[in-house]
Amino acid sequence: MEEWLMQKNVTASDVARALGMSQSTVSRVFTPGASVSAKTRKKVLEAAQQMGYRPNAIARSLITKKSNMIGIVMGDVKNPFYPNVLSMFSRELGKKGYHLLFVNTKNNQISDDEIFQLCEYNVEGIIITDALLTSSLASYFKDKQIPIVMFNRYEQNSLFHAVSCDNIDGGYQIGKYLLTKGHRHLAFISGNPNTSTSHDRKKGFQEALQESGYTYTTEYGDYTYEGSYQATLRLLKSALPLDAIFCANDIMALGAIDAAKEIGVRIPEDVSIIGFDDIDLAAWSAYSLTTWKQPVNKMIAATIELLLKHIEKPEQNNLIIYKSIKGSLVERKTVMDRH
Amino acid sequence: MEEWLMQKNVTASDVARALGMSQSTVSRVFTPGASVSAKTRKKVLEAAQQMGYRPNAIARSLITKKSNMIGIVMGDVKNPFYPNVLSMFSRELGKKGYHLLFVNTKNNQISDDEIFQLCEYNVEGIIITDALLTSSLASYFKDKQIPIVMFNRYEQNSLFHAVSCDNIDGGYQIGKYLLTKGHRHLAFISGNPNTSTSHDRKKGFQEALQESGYTYTTEYGDYTYEGSYQATLRLLKSALPLDAIFCANDIMALGAIDAAKEIGVRIPEDVSIIGFDDIDLAAWSAYSLTTWKQPVNKMIAATIELLLKHIEKPEQNNLIIYKSIKGSLVERKTVMDRH
Repeated sequence: MEEWLMQKNVTASDVARALGMSQSTVSRVFTPGASVSAKTRKKVLEAAQQMGYRPNAIARSLITKKSNMIGIVMGDVKNPFYPNVLSMFSRELGKKGYHLLFVNTKNNQISDDEIFQLCEYNVEGIIITDALLTSSLASYFKDKQIPIVMFNRYEQNSLFHAVSCDNIDGGYQIGKYLLTKGHRHLAFISGNPNTSTSHDRKKGFQEALQESGYTYTTEYGDYTYEGSYQATLRLLKSALPLDAIFCANDIMALGAIDAAKEIGVRIPEDVSIIGFDDIDLAAWSAYSLTTWKQPVNKMIAATIELLLKHIEKPEQNNLIIYKSIKGSLVERKTVMDRH
Repeated sequence: MEEWLMQKNVTASDVARALGMSQSTVSRVFTPGASVSAKTRKKVLEAAQQMGYRPNAIARSLITKKSNMIGIVMGDVKNPFYPNVLSMFSRELGKKGYHLLFVNTKNNQISDDEIFQLCEYNVEGIIITDALLTSSLASYFKDKQIPIVMFNRYEQNSLFHAVSCDNIDGGYQIGKYLLTKGHRHLAFISGNPNTSTSHDRKKGFQEALQESGYTYTTEYGDYTYEGSYQATLRLLKSALPLDAIFCANDIMALGAIDAAKEIGVRIPEDVSIIGFDDIDLAAWSAYSLTTWKQPVNKMIAATIELLLKHIEKPEQNNLIIYKSIKGSLVERKTVMDRH
């Protein structure tokens, strides 16, 4: 600690004194565009390194064009999946010397202002989690050649790299699993239907059911606990026969479980419920939710790899890469074998 | 959108062309320390403003010494209280033109590296939520004259402003409330005992009990669901009579409820449980937790006010201000009247 504080206090004037130069000469070396001879520059840089003098990150970023900042755009922090992802990105990128500029979007739609902020700070790359890009903003990013990776999202004909769980496979395996366990009257509680996550999970689910000749009911829960709570009440109070509900994320599955209990529907005896994500709460004994585990560690690692590769080799940036990583079933206590 | 994109594309060379000057003259105006006449500077700045030319934030921050960045240091994102606070700070500070550099600490202890990052980016101020500062780092911050507000934390003889809920009052009112409802065998599940939050909530609770001649048992739950789950099992499996548990935060109260249910102890018939925070989950029907609501909106507003006042008037920074804001009881279903 002591040593570090000492090092921190090394200034341009200390370096100048050690070299017998003026402070302004030393400063010019660290000022973009200032005139200084190659020989002087070399001397100053060597001494600066030995003495532990580092001009601050902002000054340095003007020289190196590297800000070491990554923008992260996130909407829904009420779904614990995302704060967890934020924390993991912060730690993993921190190990590589990057820092996070955090942007919290309203209504999951990225605004002009928010983009403006990120560009203003010379972020080297941007990770977009659960927010939506308008097509004009997408073109703007592309023009500015800012590397972007969509995390847990992708768009058709996207201009940007994307990493997500294999949501179609997840939905498909969930459909198969519920049928194998003898369920015949199924419902799907959708998130925002404009998102690839909800769309793909539904698509895979539908495929599995169609292969076996079954259909299902759809309700909309808006990816929130409250939305799904209400959607579940609508389903359970309708005249439809129902023995299983697939919720497009865990937080909705928890809302579904609580809604069912509220009106005396037993989980899983009367209705099975399965989620998607495997957030910490899914394992809480109040829920013991059977769900589909997103491979979050692998998704984070793949996102960072793509982003840093793009930052380091921008010339290869025309090849758009979409990585889809398979998840796995976590069986707990909310799905019953009906055979 | 179109107009905005147009404005964004105004460059130093557009400004130069409009004024019939060279681009390097325009750039010099926006380069710290570069030589340029007062007359030219005025002309360029006026034209730049009219045309909507803005050099980027990093370049500007060298001129104005304002980065418009606030560092936020946060540890435990698994407690939903903190992601919610992060989101609120992001929105409220965003309205005032500030952006958040997010630092996620390990083990709630701020490391040298993390501080180094924040200083490197010329953050104008720092908000520290649930992390701990060593005394040497505190001195370092003080020396660097970086405005700091501790949110939901304070330290004895602190060098920094602090904003928190009136935790002593909260603990006291909770103690009174449980006694009024006829509880006589009380337990307290503590968070990290080195934190002012847990310490003060306990202190107030103890005062209320002592006034009426009662004592209580203490267990440690580490401010986590899992920690409190285990602490509750220890309490309930011991030979001690017990009719109420005060948990120092909500997430621990949820762990306590689930642990009790797991071993067939009915809440609130056998044991009452009360939390502290009023996170969203407290209202979920699976829990319906009676708790103490932290006045988060007021706490956020007070923190921002203190921080910005300090940033704007650094000369007044010797007066350390500690704001403590009263919370309020939220009665739900986990405390029974035992009379």
